[in-house]
Amino acid sequence: MGLKFSIPYQIPFYETDITHQVKLPHLLAFSLQVSGMQSESLGNTDKDVFDKYGLVWIVTDYAIEIDRLPRYNEKVTITTEAISYNKIFCYRNFYITDEAGQQIMLFKTTFALMDYETRKVAEVPDEVVAPYEADKTKKLLRGPRYKALENPIETLYRVRYFDLDMNGHVNNSKYLEWMLDVFDLDFLTKYTPAHIDLKYVKEIHHGSEIYSGYEFDQESLSSQHQICVDGNIHAQAIIQWKEIGEE
Amino acid sequence: MGLKFSIPYQIPFYETDITHQVKLPHLLAFSLQVSGMQSESLGNTDKDVFDKYGLVWIVTDYAIEIDRLPRYNEKVTITTEAISYNKIFCYRNFYITDEAGQQIMLFKTTFALMDYETRKVAEVPDEVVAPYEADKTKKLLRGPRYKALENPIETLYRVRYFDLDMNGHVNNSKYLEWMLDVFDLDFLTKYTPAHIDLKYVKEIHHGSEIYSGYEFDQESLSSQHQICVDGNIHAQAIIQWKEIGEE
Repeated sequence: MGLKFSIPYQIPFYETDITHQVKLPHLLAFSLQVSGMQSESLGNTDKDVFDKYGLVWIVTDYAIEIDRLPRYNEKVTITTEAISYNKIFCYRNFYITDEAGQQIMLFKTTFALMDYETRKVAEVPDEVVAPYEADKTKKLLRGPRYKALENPIETLYRVRYFDLDMNGHVNNSKYLEWMLDVFDLDFLTKYTPAHIDLKYVKEIHHGSEIYSGYEFDQESLSSQHQICVDGNIHAQAIIQWKEIGEE
Repeated sequence: MGLKFSIPYQIPFYETDITHQVKLPHLLAFSLQVSGMQSESLGNTDKDVFDKYGLVWIVTDYAIEIDRLPRYNEKVTITTEAISYNKIFCYRNFYITDEAGQQIMLFKTTFALMDYETRKVAEVPDEVVAPYEADKTKKLLRGPRYKALENPIETLYRVRYFDLDMNGHVNNSKYLEWMLDVFDLDFLTKYTPAHIDLKYVKEIHHGSEIYSGYEFDQESLSSQHQICVDGNIHAQAIIQWKEIGEE
């Protein structure tokens, strides 16, 4: 286990949805900011890594456990910890705790380093991750097996200008927005995710037409998702749902 | 002039666009948060106003002056100040200053109070605005005259779940996203707004089909915008553009 880094955060109005809970895609985006702050506090910024190696951090997988989502104005603490790394992947957890110190969410994330020019995943230089004091292991953590959906219900999205981030591709957090937006308002005000596994397969660029497809199983209250461009899968997810208020 | 309230803010990665500048709609949303913080610091929260009067704050107009947009990781200070109010409208400025104390942006905003049940604008109770120590005047500040567009180029948007805020309607900042998104990527990486006048006319709800229309005048580098639902205008704007880097 590596160094921990925490910051307090109060959930702002404009990142809260109609249920008064935080928008989950925002909390994912903000958490990445927290790991960026840890890097800065250790004098090992993303810019340093880019300048020295031409590499940028990308997230390849999330496993998200949600006891409950924080609500408007609630004060939480977000703690990040580098868990371990191997030749290609770096594993990092984010813990969201409430004011009483109770953990309410856990994001297990897999990071990799992408060569900015070739857009390919590169080996992790030991010295890039040394400051986080996580152990190097041979162990690969694997997510669930995702299958291509047979009869997905699909909704078309276009990439909007503000979906792009500084890296020139669609920001990670937007994929989850497209996945959740396919449900109707009734569903999203009654149910909330309890667990999400999410895998990023390929980048998405401006001008793309996105098909956000899903299959929902009422009995198990679970859904499977895929984000496709030109018939190719760019991200997949499995979401376990529960009723809002059921903790 | 009323009480001022300032907070420091560092521009996060996920709110930065491909030009490395802050996403303007985010800065509008965040500024409203700052006025909320001022209210909280004065023991006069939005929740108090809602509980006591059944009223919620809405923004009806913006006049935005942009010398330059802050960039990724830049540390700015956002200062808000209640300027004056009359029977219906409250005028409030937001000043964005850089680390050297230089003002780089000014948002002049017009607020009103909406009855949450009837969705109609209500008179401003003096005691709701007393804590901000702004002067009561008879003076109405008027924005520019907006005209309905004759031959707009239109793009269709659907309201997404995460476009809604806690008030159950589309968040203010999304209208500006729809207005800016109609331009192509080349334009938005070459030009940036220098001045925006924006007027909100009607709320937008989930399920609506939005037509974001615009006319652009190359000679004056200005554009006129309207957001329509079912043929009715819900917002209008005039944007003066300049080349990025020209300050």
